[in-house]
Amino acid sequence: MIKIGIVGGTGYTGVELLRILAQHPQAELTTITSRKEAGMPVSDMFPNLRGRVKLAFEDPATAPLTQCDVVFFATPNGIAMTQARDLLEAGVRVIDLAADFRITDVPTWEKWYGMPHACPELVSDAVYGLPEINREKIKGARLIANPGCYPTAVQLGFLPLIEAGVVDRAHLIADAKSGVSGAGRKAEVHALLAEAADNFKAYGVAGHRHLPEIRQGLARAAGREVGLTFVPHLTPMIRGIEATLYARLTKEVDLQALFEQRYRDEAFVDVMAPGALPETRSVRASNVCRIAVHRPQGGDTVVVLSVIDNLVKGASGQAVQNMNILFGLPETLGLDQVPVLP
Amino acid sequence: MIKIGIVGGTGYTGVELLRILAQHPQAELTTITSRKEAGMPVSDMFPNLRGRVKLAFEDPATAPLTQCDVVFFATPNGIAMTQARDLLEAGVRVIDLAADFRITDVPTWEKWYGMPHACPELVSDAVYGLPEINREKIKGARLIANPGCYPTAVQLGFLPLIEAGVVDRAHLIADAKSGVSGAGRKAEVHALLAEAADNFKAYGVAGHRHLPEIRQGLARAAGREVGLTFVPHLTPMIRGIEATLYARLTKEVDLQALFEQRYRDEAFVDVMAPGALPETRSVRASNVCRIAVHRPQGGDTVVVLSVIDNLVKGASGQAVQNMNILFGLPETLGLDQVPVLP
Amino acid sequence: MIKIGIVGGTGYTGVELLRILAQHPQAELTTITSRKEAGMPVSDMFPNLRGRVKLAFEDPATAPLTQCDVVFFATPNGIAMTQARDLLEAGVRVIDLAADFRITDVPTWEKWYGMPHACPELVSDAVYGLPEINREKIKGARLIANPGCYPTAVQLGFLPLIEAGVVDRAHLIADAKSGVSGAGRKAEVHALLAEAADNFKAYGVAGHRHLPEIRQGLARAAGREVGLTFVPHLTPMIRGIEATLYARLTKEVDLQALFEQRYRDEAFVDVMAPGALPETRSVRASNVCRIAVHRPQGGDTVVVLSVIDNLVKGASGQAVQNMNILFGLPETLGLDQVPVLP
Amino acid sequence: MIKIGIVGGTGYTGVELLRILAQHPQAELTTITSRKEAGMPVSDMFPNLRGRVKLAFEDPATAPLTQCDVVFFATPNGIAMTQARDLLEAGVRVIDLAADFRITDVPTWEKWYGMPHACPELVSDAVYGLPEINREKIKGARLIANPGCYPTAVQLGFLPLIEAGVVDRAHLIADAKSGVSGAGRKAEVHALLAEAADNFKAYGVAGHRHLPEIRQGLARAAGREVGLTFVPHLTPMIRGIEATLYARLTKEVDLQALFEQRYRDEAFVDVMAPGALPETRSVRASNVCRIAVHRPQGGDTVVVLSVIDNLVKGASGQAVQNMNILFGLPETLGLDQVPVLP
Repeated sequence: MIKIGIVGGTGYTGVELLRILAQHPQAELTTITSRKEAGMPVSDMFPNLRGRVKLAFEDPATAPLTQCDVVFFATPNGIAMTQARDLLEAGVRVIDLAADFRITDVPTWEKWYGMPHACPELVSDAVYGLPEINREKIKGARLIANPGCYPTAVQLGFLPLIEAGVVDRAHLIADAKSGVSGAGRKAEVHALLAEAADNFKAYGVAGHRHLPEIRQGLARAAGREVGLTFVPHLTPMIRGIEATLYARLTKEVDLQALFEQRYRDEAFVDVMAPGALPETRSVRASNVCRIAVHRPQGGDTVVVLSVIDNLVKGASGQAVQNMNILFGLPETLGLDQVPVLP
Repeated sequence: MIKIGIVGGTGYTGVELLRILAQHPQAELTTITSRKEAGMPVSDMFPNLRGRVKLAFEDPATAPLTQCDVVFFATPNGIAMTQARDLLEAGVRVIDLAADFRITDVPTWEKWYGMPHACPELVSDAVYGLPEINREKIKGARLIANPGCYPTAVQLGFLPLIEAGVVDRAHLIADAKSGVSGAGRKAEVHALLAEAADNFKAYGVAGHRHLPEIRQGLARAAGREVGLTFVPHLTPMIRGIEATLYARLTKEVDLQALFEQRYRDEAFVDVMAPGALPETRSVRASNVCRIAVHRPQGGDTVVVLSVIDNLVKGASGQAVQNMNILFGLPETLGLDQVPVLP
Repeated sequence: MIKIGIVGGTGYTGVELLRILAQHPQAELTTITSRKEAGMPVSDMFPNLRGRVKLAFEDPATAPLTQCDVVFFATPNGIAMTQARDLLEAGVRVIDLAADFRITDVPTWEKWYGMPHACPELVSDAVYGLPEINREKIKGARLIANPGCYPTAVQLGFLPLIEAGVVDRAHLIADAKSGVSGAGRKAEVHALLAEAADNFKAYGVAGHRHLPEIRQGLARAAGREVGLTFVPHLTPMIRGIEATLYARLTKEVDLQALFEQRYRDEAFVDVMAPGALPETRSVRASNVCRIAVHRPQGGDTVVVLSVIDNLVKGASGQAVQNMNILFGLPETLGLDQVPVLP
Repeated sequence: MIKIGIVGGTGYTGVELLRILAQHPQAELTTITSRKEAGMPVSDMFPNLRGRVKLAFEDPATAPLTQCDVVFFATPNGIAMTQARDLLEAGVRVIDLAADFRITDVPTWEKWYGMPHACPELVSDAVYGLPEINREKIKGARLIANPGCYPTAVQLGFLPLIEAGVVDRAHLIADAKSGVSGAGRKAEVHALLAEAADNFKAYGVAGHRHLPEIRQGLARAAGREVGLTFVPHLTPMIRGIEATLYARLTKEVDLQALFEQRYRDEAFVDVMAPGALPETRSVRASNVCRIAVHRPQGGDTVVVLSVIDNLVKGASGQAVQNMNILFGLPETLGLDQVPVLP
């Protein structure tokens, strides 16, 4: 059994981690911390966990985090970077679900996240936890930077095209839509049901924090810089991300075969049949990414449709997938829930 | 033209007042106040008002409220009671959309609202602004306590039965359901889309502030105390209240005729045909209350179904209806929008 | 392994059965039938099942149903009664998720369901599959009538009160609210998102088919007839039922202890703490019923709040629970998914 | 008063026409037809119209359509083309809300709509009713082809760029999202709340009927063919379209000034401030299109955000706007409702 600690855990990635780990045959939930809610049983905050998770939130100062095999940070940005070093030095593996270790270039990180990095020397140590590109590195990692939700959907959609070098890398477009849980479990007016329901809007057009993360990932795959326009949108649903990706073809290629080939051995990437239209509910509450590739009217614009559950493959499920890889477990262990539809 | 001031106005009753008054042929919006947002154009906060409301929020300290003919308080509870006297003394009529003047018995008010009343001597002066029972008193009022949303739907549904004395007044049941805008435009976790969507729950079962208000209204109509169990519920929609009311019949009566008769001359109460099932969307964005009365299986339990838009007949529309009465205008002036369906 | 057949299966109870059984360690999905969709892979209709359910719909005429250990009918009312006899004679156990065998009194069934019963002699053979009252009978059953969704939520909420004889059984009130999946996966205008979203309404006030089923269950528990007013409502969500139940207390009793005692040994009934407000999302996609009991203002009206997922404990999950009991498996086998929240 | 007939009217564009015309000071609703619902009062089908629209549906065979000044077709595609000629010959103006007369090239229309055109000789007579480009022609028209919903949002967003010749016209991208009312009031499984809520998906990627309509409009503005990739999406809300448009800049230009200049005199197009993020609810139930123009990171990709209410500016409101122009009325008459928010 793997002894597990969770720092934070009063947000949506926290409750989702608990939901998944409570059903994971090798996970032993050891401690979960919350400064604000110390003493409260977790299931008082999240009634879906009644009878399934017995832990109460503990004060981070006294929680036995260093006795864990792995600690997940389900915290806001800027927390893991202040605590990771001590845990690593105690031999604990760290998986950060926030953004602290995702961007290799520290000045870029500091610009987009608006704070100095507390632990820049660990950044190069961290492995970017997208198993579909980094599986081998993850196996030996001490510190994993779990990818963002949009970056997961967008990179998985673009990767086959970028790696094969068949599109104009300078003018990629990612039009992405997210359910409101992506905004977190924070009391904010714009995320109220009375504001966000029966409504649709773009946001972050001038620049969203996931833009440099996606650009970094695609640039690595391309071996050079890429040009990307990324427009996220808020859609009135709880869970789910759909990314519609546009690129200009520069070479003739069998797109369907390219995608099927790329993801042939991936348990959590489902390349759908030609003509398919993936919907977010087809992956609800599961760790799957479904992708379809289109070439409308046979023109030179390729359209990729990619859907994930932002809280699972876009956050906590992928974190558990990384944990499985890290500890030599079957990659799908505890992650085989059938998506919930309707 | 009636010169109008609005105190508060950054919440949902505020934007709804503005929406209605912007289309009211006799309303002249003179000033709107917000301590926090002073200086911000109203339409920056509420983009639906772009090009239709030119006002900016003003500091309450300097806003020309005393030059208005009427001032609406679209504020949290406890504000109007501290400012009403000065306005009244300046000859301004006051319509409070909050609860400060709704409960005649001051100790009862203080118990349910958890604060001392700042202005108890004005309470008996205030007229409860439910036109369907108090139209004549409203005409001469200086200070109007605009009813709560649940109290409007529930009282209009029970009144014909109570006034006619045909039901057991000691055991009334009101099972009411509200859209999330009833919780206001406040940053609170429980009202987030990701919490409240695809979810249904009862709340306030132990005691909701609207309980004493409803009991007071029904007791007046009955001429004696009434017994009421009131259970509100949160339903995942933006606007609308549906109240399903249960009472035991104590006399044989033609229920349909009783209701039609009672509301024959009311412009904003629509008694539907026998068997009808009123839906909240049939009154969306309008000042109408639709009611149907049933007697399932011919038994001795009468079931009344009552729907309103909580922000219109349950708040801002009723406030404008009261203003119309107060100023001798046709009661429906500026309130004739056709409900928006779908 | 239990060989399983499903008749029907293009509706919501069908896809939910498949979701649950695909994760059940003792279930071997053998055949699923649909006259209309014969030949289509199940996962083409329900993309959440891609890679998890390999079956294609088969023509009912040729499907190997008689070789199954158990056959589930996930069909409209009126189908199981025409096919059950042949299966039973072939030694197959039958679990009907529709209403054909729920009502013991055949003329009552025929009146409410508007058709002659094709197989009245089997009705008395059938066991009503609510494990919390009928566990022993279910063990030896050949034919199980799986309860309706509303009847499950309402009966589980009322049972402790009725069995203990502490309320006025002649005037029970059940105000129930259901998500739209309760209407089934049928093309009907009233269930369109553009009709049912941002809307709330009562329906079936004059008489809903679940009324006689609930009355029958409560009468059995009471040992005499009961009087029940049942008003179902449609609420704009996908899954979930909340029932708010009202009864007049006739004896002093410790309500909390009564409920805890009654359900002490039930794996799928969670009696929550005093004051709790169960929400439908706390049981989403799980087989749990959560209940809270209230006595507002200490009066003589008891209020019970009961929530289930209409597709799980209200249909397919309960059917699998019945299968587990029938085949001597642990009752919770394959039914331990943690509810999905948010 | 303008005597008005409506053919069809049991769908969403029908009820929306009725809602708008019931409040239009110069409109006299004379007749509304429905073969299937002949005899039913309109307000029995649409309860929001109770007390506001007294008409009953009439049999099209006997309805006094030829006595009207104008007849609106709120019918499926393929109906207006069979009836327009007779009405025009009787001197009645015709406004078709469906697609029969939108595409000038008849073979193109027949290919995309899958039927022979019943009245090709009238096609060249018809004026495409987008007032922002065709106001003068509309004034003298006999037959108006009211634009589609997506084409309205997309064309208004692209027009300033295309007319000014500042973008690469060969590679335009329109990523559009629509509420479910865009699918009409038809009983179809995919539009059920239980299917479409909490879900997001692209559709029509291979080719949507609005593609040739948009291409035709943009080609006219450009004076040459344009290349367009158009991907529509279904989003879980009732009303609203958001179009996110991408184009490559080929000339330096002050984008904000370009858009403001283009729509300076348009009552129903609101060019928002730089950086603005238009949301669909800001135009809910109103005839307004709000547009913002962005240039992310100062690159060469321009992003235009355009929102409308698909049932108003995208259908019935625009039809009434066309009627106003046609009859020499102020263009905004009866169309000044303030959008409903929240």
